[in-house]
Amino acid sequence: MKKNLFRIKDLTKNELLDILDDAQAFASTYRDWQFPQRKLVANLFFEPSTRTHFSFVSAEHQLNCRVENFTATGSSVEKGESLYDTVKTFESIGYDAVVIRHPQDEYFNELGNIHIPILNAGDGKGNHPTQCLLDLLTIRQEFEHFDGIKLAVVGDIKHSRVAHSIQEAMTMLGGETRFGGPEEWQDDGTNYASIDDLVGWADVVMMLRIQHERHSSLMKMSAQEYLENYGMTKERYDQMQAHAIIMHPAPVNRGVEIADELVESEKSRIFKQMSNGVLVRKAVLKRAFDYSFESEGIR
Amino acid sequence: MKKNLFRIKDLTKNELLDILDDAQAFASTYRDWQFPQRKLVANLFFEPSTRTHFSFVSAEHQLNCRVENFTATGSSVEKGESLYDTVKTFESIGYDAVVIRHPQDEYFNELGNIHIPILNAGDGKGNHPTQCLLDLLTIRQEFEHFDGIKLAVVGDIKHSRVAHSIQEAMTMLGGETRFGGPEEWQDDGTNYASIDDLVGWADVVMMLRIQHERHSSLMKMSAQEYLENYGMTKERYDQMQAHAIIMHPAPVNRGVEIADELVESEKSRIFKQMSNGVLVRKAVLKRAFDYSFESEGIR
Amino acid sequence: MKKNLFRIKDLTKNELLDILDDAQAFASTYRDWQFPQRKLVANLFFEPSTRTHFSFVSAEHQLNCRVENFTATGSSVEKGESLYDTVKTFESIGYDAVVIRHPQDEYFNELGNIHIPILNAGDGKGNHPTQCLLDLLTIRQEFEHFDGIKLAVVGDIKHSRVAHSIQEAMTMLGGETRFGGPEEWQDDGTNYASIDDLVGWADVVMMLRIQHERHSSLMKMSAQEYLENYGMTKERYDQMQAHAIIMHPAPVNRGVEIADELVESEKSRIFKQMSNGVLVRKAVLKRAFDYSFESEGIR
Repeated sequence: MKKNLFRIKDLTKNELLDILDDAQAFASTYRDWQFPQRKLVANLFFEPSTRTHFSFVSAEHQLNCRVENFTATGSSVEKGESLYDTVKTFESIGYDAVVIRHPQDEYFNELGNIHIPILNAGDGKGNHPTQCLLDLLTIRQEFEHFDGIKLAVVGDIKHSRVAHSIQEAMTMLGGETRFGGPEEWQDDGTNYASIDDLVGWADVVMMLRIQHERHSSLMKMSAQEYLENYGMTKERYDQMQAHAIIMHPAPVNRGVEIADELVESEKSRIFKQMSNGVLVRKAVLKRAFDYSFESEGIR
Repeated sequence: MKKNLFRIKDLTKNELLDILDDAQAFASTYRDWQFPQRKLVANLFFEPSTRTHFSFVSAEHQLNCRVENFTATGSSVEKGESLYDTVKTFESIGYDAVVIRHPQDEYFNELGNIHIPILNAGDGKGNHPTQCLLDLLTIRQEFEHFDGIKLAVVGDIKHSRVAHSIQEAMTMLGGETRFGGPEEWQDDGTNYASIDDLVGWADVVMMLRIQHERHSSLMKMSAQEYLENYGMTKERYDQMQAHAIIMHPAPVNRGVEIADELVESEKSRIFKQMSNGVLVRKAVLKRAFDYSFESEGIR
Repeated sequence: MKKNLFRIKDLTKNELLDILDDAQAFASTYRDWQFPQRKLVANLFFEPSTRTHFSFVSAEHQLNCRVENFTATGSSVEKGESLYDTVKTFESIGYDAVVIRHPQDEYFNELGNIHIPILNAGDGKGNHPTQCLLDLLTIRQEFEHFDGIKLAVVGDIKHSRVAHSIQEAMTMLGGETRFGGPEEWQDDGTNYASIDDLVGWADVVMMLRIQHERHSSLMKMSAQEYLENYGMTKERYDQMQAHAIIMHPAPVNRGVEIADELVESEKSRIFKQMSNGVLVRKAVLKRAFDYSFESEGIR
C-alpha cells in the first residue's frame, strides 16, 4: 500500500519513530539497501530549493531509482495547467512517485485522486516534513532519546515551515521547545524568551534562516545588528552547555544568524543535518512504497 | 540501420502498423523489454512541452537508456550556434540518439548529415508524429481496427500539428475524418461540420487545445462562450453514441474545450492517451535502433 | 587518494602524459571500462557551456556514474549562498565528485576544505584544463608525439582560457607555439605573427572563438572583414602544409573565424576534438578517484 508524506502531524508517534529508525539503519546496516525494482521518481519543484531538491535526488539515486527533475519554468504549468493535471500526467506516463515542493499551503489537498505516492518537500509556509524529520534524527543521534531534551528555536517563528512542526513533534516525544527572535516574528507570543536566556538553557539551539526573499521589508536592521541582537555570537556560543549543539536548516546567512567562524565549529551540526536529510529521505521513500528491508523484489 | 522519425507521411502503412503493434506489445508481452545495450539519449527541447518531454523520458528510462535533457536556455544556442552544429556536437560527444522539439517547421531538413537517429517531438506547427501515433493507438485499442471508424477533430484545425496528420493516417487506414470548430480556424473549408452535427456522428471526438499562447488575439470570446459554441458540454456528451469516446492531446483548458467534469468521465480517454504516448515512444525508440524484440546484445 | 584537477600547470609532465595515455586507452582497449562502484557526480555550471557540460555528462554516463546537473538559476546561490557552502552541501548530501564551471578566476582557491574531488570545467578567463588536454590529445593522435610540433593559435589571445595553457604545455612537451590575431587582443606582444605567415609554418592551426558575449564592443569590424583579416579562408587553407590540421574549441562562428565550408573539411579536426573531449574527461574522472584500469571494486 502506497503511503504519502504530507505533514508531520499526520504521523503517529510510532510511525515517526519508525522513520527515524529506518533513517538510522540507512547509516549503518542497510547503507547499501536498494529498491528491489527500479522506481521512476519525478521531483516537481515549483519553487527553488537546492538543498532539499538535491538531497532527495541523492536519496533516490542511492535507492537505485531513475530520477527526473521538473521545474515550473518552461512547462505546461506556464500554459495554465493545474497542479492536479500536472501530477495526474506524471502518474499516467509511468512515474512511480512524485516529490513536490509548491508555494501553495497544503497544495496536497487537491491531490486526493492521485494513486502514486506523493512526498511533500515543502508547501507554502505550512509544512516541510522531511526537514523536521532530519532535525529530529540529528537530535536523537546526539542524545539517544528525546525525553526532557530542551530545544530553543530562534528567528522568524511566524514564517517558518518547521518551528511549529518540530515543537509539536518534540512535545509528542517528551521534549520541550521554546522560541526566540524578533518580536514582530513571534506569532502567538507564548513560550518566547530572549536568546540570551535560551542559550544557557537549551540542549539544542536551532537558528532559523532570515528569509530576505520573503520579508525583506521587515528587516530594518543591518546584518551586524541582527547578529548582535538575535544571532549566535561567540559570546553566546560560550554560554551554551558543554553538551549542547547548534542546528540551522541552511542555507546560512553567515554573519547574520550565526557568526561566520561558528558555522563549522565544534558544536555545529549544520552539515551533519544535511547528511541526515539524505537518510530520512531514503526512509520516507522506502515507506512510500511500503517496502521492508527484507523485501526482495516483492511488493 | 538507424531510422529517423520525422513525419507520419514518411511512413508506409505497414511501418505505421508495425509501430502500433510494437507499442501494444510494450503494454503486455514485452512490458519489461529493454535495449540489450544501454543507449545515451539527449532530449533537445527548444520549446517547452511537459507531456511530450517527460513521456519520452519515461519511455527512455523504461528501455534502460541513459537520459539527458537539454534546453535552449543558457546554452550555446544562445551564443548563436545553429541547430546542425548543436546536433552534430551531441553526435560527436557520444550520444546515441536525439529527440528534438523545435519551433521551426521541418527543422530536420537541415540535419541530413547527422548519423545518429533523430526522433521528432514536434516541429513548428508542422508535425508531431508521436502524438499522431498515440492517438491511433488509442483508437485501435478501443475499436480493434480502423475500418470505417469516424473521427471528428474539433478546434483550431489551422494551427494544429496533428489534425491533418491524423486525417491522412486515418484515410490510409480506412477511417473517415471530419473537422469542426470556429470558422476562422478552418483552413481549406472542406470536410467541416458543426460540432452539434459531429457529436452524434463520430466514434471518436477529438477536441483540440485552444493555444492561448499562439493566437490569443484571435480569441475574442470568453471561455464560457467557446465551450458553449464549440466545446464538449454535458449536453453534447449525452448526444454521443454509446460506444463513442473523447480524446484530447492535453493539456486541457478545463471549462473551455471540455466541461471540467467531463475530463475524467467514462467516455474520456485523455489520461489513457498519455499512457499510450509512452508506449508509442518506446516503439519508435526501438525502431530507431532497428532492434527486434528477440535481439540480445546484437545490433 | 582523491585528485582534483584545477589547472594544467599543476600537472607534472608525467601526470599530463598519463592522462593522455588513459584517454587514448578509453578509445580502444578500455572503451567499456566503468567505475567498479557507481559514483554520484554533480555538474555545477554557474555559466552555460553546452559542449563542456554535455561532454562531461557523456563521460560520466559511460563510466556508469549517476549524474545530476545543477545550474545557478533558481538555486540557493540566488539566495546569496557562497560557492564554498554550495559545494560543501553537495559533499554533505552524498555526492562523490563535483565538476565546476564558474565565472570567477581560480574560484577553487576557496575550496581547500572540500574533501571530494573537484574537476575544473572552466574558471573565469583563467583555466580550462580539459579543453587543453583534448587539444593535446588531438595533436598527439595526429603526429604521435609533440617534439618540434609547431602550433599557431589565432584569435583573441588575451581573453582566451586556453591559449597560454596550451603554450606552456606544448613547451613542456617539446613543441613550439606562436600566436596570431588582432593587435588589441595580443597581451604581451611576444611571439606574434600574422596569420598569413603562420598558416604555412604551422603543423596545427588553432582558431579561437570570437566571444561576442564577452567583448562585442571591441569588434568594430564585420564578420566578413574579420574572416578576411584574421580568419581561415580557402586561400589560407590552401597555403597550409599537406599534413597540417585545423582545430577550434567550438562553438564555431561559421564565416567569422573559419569559412563555413571549411568547418568539416579534410584538415579540420573540430568535431574530432569534441569526441576527444569525452575521452580526456573520462581520464580525469578516473584519475579523480585514483582508480587503475585493473581495479575491481577496490578503492
